[in-house]
Amino acid sequence: MSVILVVNGPNLNLLGKREPETYGDKTLGDLQEYLREAASDSVELIFFQSNIEGEMIDFIQKNSEKADGLIINPGAYTHYSYAIRDAISATDIDTIEVHISNIHRREEFRQRSVIAPVCRGQISGLGFGSYIAALNYFLDKRS
Amino acid sequence: MSVILVVNGPNLNLLGKREPETYGDKTLGDLQEYLREAASDSVELIFFQSNIEGEMIDFIQKNSEKADGLIINPGAYTHYSYAIRDAISATDIDTIEVHISNIHRREEFRQRSVIAPVCRGQISGLGFGSYIAALNYFLDKRS
Amino acid sequence: MSVILVVNGPNLNLLGKREPETYGDKTLGDLQEYLREAASDSVELIFFQSNIEGEMIDFIQKNSEKADGLIINPGAYTHYSYAIRDAISATDIDTIEVHISNIHRREEFRQRSVIAPVCRGQISGLGFGSYIAALNYFLDKRS
Amino acid sequence: MSVILVVNGPNLNLLGKREPETYGDKTLGDLQEYLREAASDSVELIFFQSNIEGEMIDFIQKNSEKADGLIINPGAYTHYSYAIRDAISATDIDTIEVHISNIHRREEFRQRSVIAPVCRGQISGLGFGSYIAALNYFLDKRS
Amino acid sequence: MSVILVVNGPNLNLLGKREPETYGDKTLGDLQEYLREAASDSVELIFFQSNIEGEMIDFIQKNSEKADGLIINPGAYTHYSYAIRDAISATDIDTIEVHISNIHRREEFRQRSVIAPVCRGQISGLGFGSYIAALNYFLDKRS
Amino acid sequence: MSVILVVNGPNLNLLGKREPETYGDKTLGDLQEYLREAASDSVELIFFQSNIEGEMIDFIQKNSEKADGLIINPGAYTHYSYAIRDAISATDIDTIEVHISNIHRREEFRQRSVIAPVCRGQISGLGFGSYIAALNYFLDKRS
Amino acid sequence: MSVILVVNGPNLNLLGKREPETYGDKTLGDLQEYLREAASDSVELIFFQSNIEGEMIDFIQKNSEKADGLIINPGAYTHYSYAIRDAISATDIDTIEVHISNIHRREEFRQRSVIAPVCRGQISGLGFGSYIAALNYFLDKRS
Amino acid sequence: MSVILVVNGPNLNLLGKREPETYGDKTLGDLQEYLREAASDSVELIFFQSNIEGEMIDFIQKNSEKADGLIINPGAYTHYSYAIRDAISATDIDTIEVHISNIHRREEFRQRSVIAPVCRGQISGLGFGSYIAALNYFLDKRS
Amino acid sequence: MSVILVVNGPNLNLLGKREPETYGDKTLGDLQEYLREAASDSVELIFFQSNIEGEMIDFIQKNSEKADGLIINPGAYTHYSYAIRDAISATDIDTIEVHISNIHRREEFRQRSVIAPVCRGQISGLGFGSYIAALNYFLDKRS
Amino acid sequence: MSVILVVNGPNLNLLGKREPETYGDKTLGDLQEYLREAASDSVELIFFQSNIEGEMIDFIQKNSEKADGLIINPGAYTHYSYAIRDAISATDIDTIEVHISNIHRREEFRQRSVIAPVCRGQISGLGFGSYIAALNYFLDKRS
Amino acid sequence: MSVILVVNGPNLNLLGKREPETYGDKTLGDLQEYLREAASDSVELIFFQSNIEGEMIDFIQKNSEKADGLIINPGAYTHYSYAIRDAISATDIDTIEVHISNIHRREEFRQRSVIAPVCRGQISGLGFGSYIAALNYFLDKRS
Amino acid sequence: MSVILVVNGPNLNLLGKREPETYGDKTLGDLQEYLREAASDSVELIFFQSNIEGEMIDFIQKNSEKADGLIINPGAYTHYSYAIRDAISATDIDTIEVHISNIHRREEFRQRSVIAPVCRGQISGLGFGSYIAALNYFLDKRS
Repeated sequence: MSVILVVNGPNLNLLGKREPETYGDKTLGDLQEYLREAASDSVELIFFQSNIEGEMIDFIQKNSEKADGLIINPGAYTHYSYAIRDAISATDIDTIEVHISNIHRREEFRQRSVIAPVCRGQISGLGFGSYIAALNYFLDKRS
Repeated sequence: MSVILVVNGPNLNLLGKREPETYGDKTLGDLQEYLREAASDSVELIFFQSNIEGEMIDFIQKNSEKADGLIINPGAYTHYSYAIRDAISATDIDTIEVHISNIHRREEFRQRSVIAPVCRGQISGLGFGSYIAALNYFLDKRS
Repeated sequence: MSVILVVNGPNLNLLGKREPETYGDKTLGDLQEYLREAASDSVELIFFQSNIEGEMIDFIQKNSEKADGLIINPGAYTHYSYAIRDAISATDIDTIEVHISNIHRREEFRQRSVIAPVCRGQISGLGFGSYIAALNYFLDKRS
Repeated sequence: MSVILVVNGPNLNLLGKREPETYGDKTLGDLQEYLREAASDSVELIFFQSNIEGEMIDFIQKNSEKADGLIINPGAYTHYSYAIRDAISATDIDTIEVHISNIHRREEFRQRSVIAPVCRGQISGLGFGSYIAALNYFLDKRS
Repeated sequence: MSVILVVNGPNLNLLGKREPETYGDKTLGDLQEYLREAASDSVELIFFQSNIEGEMIDFIQKNSEKADGLIINPGAYTHYSYAIRDAISATDIDTIEVHISNIHRREEFRQRSVIAPVCRGQISGLGFGSYIAALNYFLDKRS
Repeated sequence: MSVILVVNGPNLNLLGKREPETYGDKTLGDLQEYLREAASDSVELIFFQSNIEGEMIDFIQKNSEKADGLIINPGAYTHYSYAIRDAISATDIDTIEVHISNIHRREEFRQRSVIAPVCRGQISGLGFGSYIAALNYFLDKRS
Repeated sequence: MSVILVVNGPNLNLLGKREPETYGDKTLGDLQEYLREAASDSVELIFFQSNIEGEMIDFIQKNSEKADGLIINPGAYTHYSYAIRDAISATDIDTIEVHISNIHRREEFRQRSVIAPVCRGQISGLGFGSYIAALNYFLDKRS
Repeated sequence: MSVILVVNGPNLNLLGKREPETYGDKTLGDLQEYLREAASDSVELIFFQSNIEGEMIDFIQKNSEKADGLIINPGAYTHYSYAIRDAISATDIDTIEVHISNIHRREEFRQRSVIAPVCRGQISGLGFGSYIAALNYFLDKRS
Repeated sequence: MSVILVVNGPNLNLLGKREPETYGDKTLGDLQEYLREAASDSVELIFFQSNIEGEMIDFIQKNSEKADGLIINPGAYTHYSYAIRDAISATDIDTIEVHISNIHRREEFRQRSVIAPVCRGQISGLGFGSYIAALNYFLDKRS
Repeated sequence: MSVILVVNGPNLNLLGKREPETYGDKTLGDLQEYLREAASDSVELIFFQSNIEGEMIDFIQKNSEKADGLIINPGAYTHYSYAIRDAISATDIDTIEVHISNIHRREEFRQRSVIAPVCRGQISGLGFGSYIAALNYFLDKRS
Repeated sequence: MSVILVVNGPNLNLLGKREPETYGDKTLGDLQEYLREAASDSVELIFFQSNIEGEMIDFIQKNSEKADGLIINPGAYTHYSYAIRDAISATDIDTIEVHISNIHRREEFRQRSVIAPVCRGQISGLGFGSYIAALNYFLDKRS
Repeated sequence: MSVILVVNGPNLNLLGKREPETYGDKTLGDLQEYLREAASDSVELIFFQSNIEGEMIDFIQKNSEKADGLIINPGAYTHYSYAIRDAISATDIDTIEVHISNIHRREEFRQRSVIAPVCRGQISGLGFGSYIAALNYFLDKRS
């Protein structure tokens, strides 16, 4: 059975509790539920959220070998964490970066990702659908 | 029955014929076939490809009112066509920008999209899967 | 009888139909009517609109010799069409660049015109009045 | 009877006396005469010229409430006087920035106005005609 | 008895009269009253407001020797007046720059102060409280 | 009873122990004592210091709801932690950024705060007085 | 018999008719004549000129397979047409970019070519001789 | 008898009173004395100092016609006063910009003069000697 | 006996396990062994690795007083951790920054270190030899 | 008989000996032979190579008067030698800059020539053919 | 007897022979004659000119100890020779940089001197007078 | 027996004679002595110093084939000599760039090396120790 890691970065634990006009009113728990439903039985999803950059790196390092893919929403670390970038390229795990909102229509600094260059691709703006689209990519690839 | 426009920009008519290492060996025809299969019966897809910036604008203007969404791969125009950007924001059509390759790991100039800021979102790097993910977004939204 | 060219660029055919809060509710047809009224009998106005950069160049090349002036709203091409700029400076036609809205209070990229440096002047922000002011300039000059 | 303020900034008192190849041979007095003729009887024009940035601000503050519009040629202050900009936006007076020459074809630093973003519009390059066009805008608006 | 100078720059004489959503509805007179109340009896406050950059310099030069501190809100001059900066560093008066609104959340150009580098510190965003905080600093220092 | 959070970032635990010429010889403990004295009885202060960016975010998230305000000295994170910025804007807690030294007269990189744009205001250069001024702001606001 | 494409971009149809001080008084027809004479009998030259970016792409796409080389003067598109660049790299046709005038001594924006990086080389400043030199390159290569 | 204007800008009235380590301990009066001695009998020197940008412009405008040259130390206005620059180029007076200290070894912003491009030359770093050298230039030129 | 700290930052725990073409096939354990051998008996080496920026700061703060020097490879934090920089300058520990690969021949962003300006020196590109060279520096200095 | 100077800059004496994948396996001697053959009998070629910037200038100064043209490959000096640029413009010799490889597809810094702006033209990317094309230009011009 | 070095850089040996409209028609010999006349008997002038950057450094190194001052016109090396800059600061010789023309009104690149920051001052635009003014400075200083 | 080249650039012949606070009081001769002692008997060191960029290139070209490594301190040429960079990459000699002081804590322009990208590595800030560390690298590699 294949394994997909789903990593959420800083402040994404607040999903659904704050700023609903930007991020909707569904929680991180709802998102995880939603993803589990979308995943076929033969795929295991391992969820992780942390506000600490280095803990995200620890998690990726420890789980990358048993995993077939990584869906990551690095939150604000998207824009400056070369350390997370290095963790992804060092472990060479197949990765899709996702964002709930369209980062390209927000502040200037949010439009640049230092992580996307080492990913398979990037999906932004589809709400929770961004995660689903990434998951589907891995499901299709597996088949 | 809802209608989705699928617009491909310059050089995408060469898909599958040139540079297979970057874009794969499937043609634009294959892509369209592939999308039609993925679309449920109740959705009509209207395809358009042109190398001419202004013709892409003409097409969007003429078809936006009857359409529920636009999937656009603006090719190289992604990086400088403020005119296509204006066509999308003027017609206010719900739009997803897609790219076959991950533009964020290519040349510097390809990492900036002047069109994405007026779109719902952007998907890049999933191959034809980028179009499928966009299509699924519209299918889900419709339901 | 003197001749004035009035060229409108991409998306200006949507005038009055979309984004009335920015551009008002008058159409391109209304604008042309309005200009014809303002023109004295002894001036012929030739109107042209296209979404295609190169067609705008074609029109300018073909009509510049018989014309005494050019009023041009290059739309989004204002910000990157060095080709239209070259058409104006090559034909050496007396040109005024006009904009309906005040481009200096909009997005950063809209504040720079690559075409204005080869024009007589630039007028922005007066609504249809921008065209009228340009027309008056040519009328005064003629007398 | 409506009132329009006409403010000229630094060195514009030299009009017609220096650099005729750029600014023509008409004086500031000629300009004022010319504007008075163009104004209908029912409009009062109040003229002001100063080389001192702060005096221009004083004038705008003191006269903005009784005035219906402001035509301003800020001279070189155009390019750095955020203080004049603030005076205009604080008093919320309807303002058109004018320039005799086409600032967009001169030195790089002259192509940027820090004042235009808080104005109704900007007119440049029409000689004294720039002022006339601004005046006409206010006359039309009044009617 | 110690003396504190309170200098307000361009457009601050409009306080409370314009743009209340940004600056509140209290006038410059109210501010001065408010400060006088907050000052202990043993401190003399000397107020000055001008729209003219050079008059602000004149005032600082003439009063710096008898004063123990300077509270200055340079208004828009904050962003370009190297001349006021030089007046402060030449007279070596202990200075705190204050702003009513938070300049760091406004337009890009308002986020940079050319004067703060020669001041003791900078306080912004606390409304009239910015002045009070500066005053308290001098009161504490004196004790 | 109202509650104010006081968060100090990286290396501020060294206060008074290192670099006294820049930061004085008082310790973080002294600062906290000092603040408690300044606070009226009816205000509870909750102190937190960490060198870890994500722990600062954790603390803000966990305590923001019960708190009426946040005084934060983000240390070096001031200049790049978009993640802390997001924590503040997500929790919408009323925040004042403080700095002991005047960051505007130090190295170029220290003059820009990525956090201040989502704060009420910023106070720098008053030594421990920066914290006191922030505290006073909240005390005044409460009354 | 080998085939060489000769593509001229926007405004080059005006050659010899306008701006003789920059481009000489020979027409595009003269250039083509001149090239035909220089070509040996065994080489076929196919000429194309358009003001429309996308038509230049269409032409390159349709003729690249039967051709041995491409001589292109992209006119003003030189400086921003990533779409023409992509057409050349996608078809992988051996290409030399030519310019009549020395683009390196003209305006700043004319000194950068976005197309040259995918060409064999670039020749500028030799008048019609730039085309001849490119042609000679292909003749020599063939032999 | 020829006439030379000597204009000193903001804060130069403090010469000799403040910052002697940078500017020496001689006053503006000493400088003027010093220059008068250096001037031959047949040259009249007219001195002017102001902290107000616009007054410097007024002085230049009013005296340029009767003068043969201008020695100007614009102080901090050196770095942003395009208005003074325009006054010099408008009056076309032969001008030498002088600085007491070597502006090229001070802060970045002091190394750029917006006025020097319209002057005959610039002299910096020679103390009062900078003025003397400028004066000598005019004396030599006169002979 | 003197003490040298050896701190390795994010992803360096993967040494020898991933990307051997860049970093070789020796592990972090091998490196530490190698350094211990190179160290004379009279020097104690204390090793530390963490993916968490703040933990690196904690370690430096806690051990700097008993240590005579610090050898640090900050990994990707090299390029943005002003917080680690501050920890080094606050503790004033004699520090050498090391890198296994030559950061000057890699991506643009890797060529700038925000930490090196507060170090004794920087060594890059010598593989494990970079650490040895740093160690030798401290050994020599001690003798 | 006309005379053409052929100057090669730093490291071009290594031609054919190093980096054949970039520069081919022909030596500088081969190049000179090749050029002599291409030159008609009536043209004298004077060759010069030096690694020393100033010697290249010496050579140009000493031989420019007797020469009808200069073919120069400035090697790496292309990108920063304003001194060679000045030598060419001072002697006003008709000059063509040549490069063996296409400098526009190499590192960023190689794409800018500080010398080309004072040359007749620039040819790059044709191998030794770049020199031949330049020679032909002079031969044609002579006839 | 005091000694002053007078060093002229690349292409200044062409003085009076080329580009008289910029540099006048006097030769380097004339300049040296002119300076000798201006020097009092008690000052020895040692002249040097070279097109080779390193030879200029050699000369400065070898003669700095016996000299009391250096007048240098670094020609184009002004704009990039950090090596000459280092020679001046290493030998700590009192230096004045001179230019015949006003470098501040020429091309952008000529407006920046990398050498001036280590000089006493800079004089430009006075023709040969720039050298004389520098010489006078040393004569005055000696007395 | 292996051979190592040791090349020192401009002004390094002044070592120990000037600026001891930056470079210490040991001479270039001392350095060479010191290196010879550190080298094992089986390694030959060839020393070279020049102030002339091109002579450094000459030396590298002539000696690279017989050498096993190059230790180079390019002095100020570090920051702009693309010609030395090309000499190193053309000869493909294994090279370590060294600096006595820590270039990363000096002026902005000294922090960028255009040569390091073609070297094995870079060592700065260890005083003469930088050379020793480089030498040790070659000694270790040889063994």
